[in-house]
Amino acid sequence: MATESLKTKEGLPVNYGLLVFPTFQALDAFGPMDILNLLSRDYPMNLSIIAQTLEPVSTKHRDPSLNPLRSNFGESVVPTHDFSNAPPLDVLIIPGGYGLAANDLDLVYEFVKRTYPSLKYLITICNGCWVAARAGILDGKRATTNKSGWEMTKEIRPDVNWVAHARWVVDGNIWTSSGVSAGMDATLAFVGEVYGEEKAKEIAIVMEYERHEDPSWDPFADIYNLPKDT
Amino acid sequence: MATESLKTKEGLPVNYGLLVFPTFQALDAFGPMDILNLLSRDYPMNLSIIAQTLEPVSTKHRDPSLNPLRSNFGESVVPTHDFSNAPPLDVLIIPGGYGLAANDLDLVYEFVKRTYPSLKYLITICNGCWVAARAGILDGKRATTNKSGWEMTKEIRPDVNWVAHARWVVDGNIWTSSGVSAGMDATLAFVGEVYGEEKAKEIAIVMEYERHEDPSWDPFADIYNLPKDT
Repeated sequence: MATESLKTKEGLPVNYGLLVFPTFQALDAFGPMDILNLLSRDYPMNLSIIAQTLEPVSTKHRDPSLNPLRSNFGESVVPTHDFSNAPPLDVLIIPGGYGLAANDLDLVYEFVKRTYPSLKYLITICNGCWVAARAGILDGKRATTNKSGWEMTKEIRPDVNWVAHARWVVDGNIWTSSGVSAGMDATLAFVGEVYGEEKAKEIAIVMEYERHEDPSWDPFADIYNLPKDT
Repeated sequence: MATESLKTKEGLPVNYGLLVFPTFQALDAFGPMDILNLLSRDYPMNLSIIAQTLEPVSTKHRDPSLNPLRSNFGESVVPTHDFSNAPPLDVLIIPGGYGLAANDLDLVYEFVKRTYPSLKYLITICNGCWVAARAGILDGKRATTNKSGWEMTKEIRPDVNWVAHARWVVDGNIWTSSGVSAGMDATLAFVGEVYGEEKAKEIAIVMEYERHEDPSWDPFADIYNLPKDT
């Protein structure tokens, strides 16, 4: 109830940001966006799409070794802001993607590091948590990520309390979700927590989406043979 | 087996097109795109994003009555082609969205009408079937759509054999799926049919997506009290 009072007092989040970078994973971003697009019909909300520059940002592979057959297949989204002029945000959403293996993303990490203290909520999907981890924000916190890249994630930031078996994890105001599709379940749970469970259910039905409402549901951790959490 | 021989003889689809229009539904497009983005690592594939003009196309509501709180929330994608220069396609994917209630989409219907005869496959998601229906392509065929707008769909084109209880429907080379999220199940089933079930399973696991593999699975038809199919 204390949480409820706080939310009422501070008001609901209005200003959302979606961080994008080259070779982001489409569904990591657009699963949550579809949910929030629908929510924005019932609540006044603004979205900023934020990238290092204002050039369209593509899901296509930058690393040719990940595109051995030279497919020309991907989608580009248009940023509304860059790191120099992004507005104050209540919620920042960070998708994952193969692009986070690149080694030229220091400005991305710096943006998240300096933006986090003024956020009400941070939501990461799949290995989007790598950005938060590298920004030092997850140290000492419980967090999860996609299950196929588990060992790599642990190496990237051993100081995080990584949870192997979870569809999503909430620690304080940080929501981290498992791989790709899990971002939809985490975002619907976030909507349920912040805007009420009825709204989350209503949106899932409009989307004809069968939610996983249990954050510990994770058959994929077993498929990838991840160890039990201690 | 006859189908298998035909596929081998003709070869797998290479050139995909995604049709977009103002106020398309994000997940209708990007659920299937995420699947095909992953598939394009293993098969040579090209994607054209096709719209009436080359201007970025947004999910934002054009109709202010659908955005009563004046939210400024949406995402824009960049077309690669317009209707005048779209390349020959093997597969055309048509998302749905509130934007299909507009009455200025004749050029969209004409594009689909003239493109369909040379396609190997047409895939529609949610009320994206309205485009195919209005282009006259679905007449006499079995098809489905989202369940919240069922009566409107039937009025739009009574000559289609609309299937009320279905996650997706295949009739000939036309795949129509139910609402929003159903596009992912239909696309994974399409991948299973055309590229092999092992590949579909592999992609679903990478996406950490729990598929519905039964095309008759449809609790949403019941939620919306749709009549039994006769």
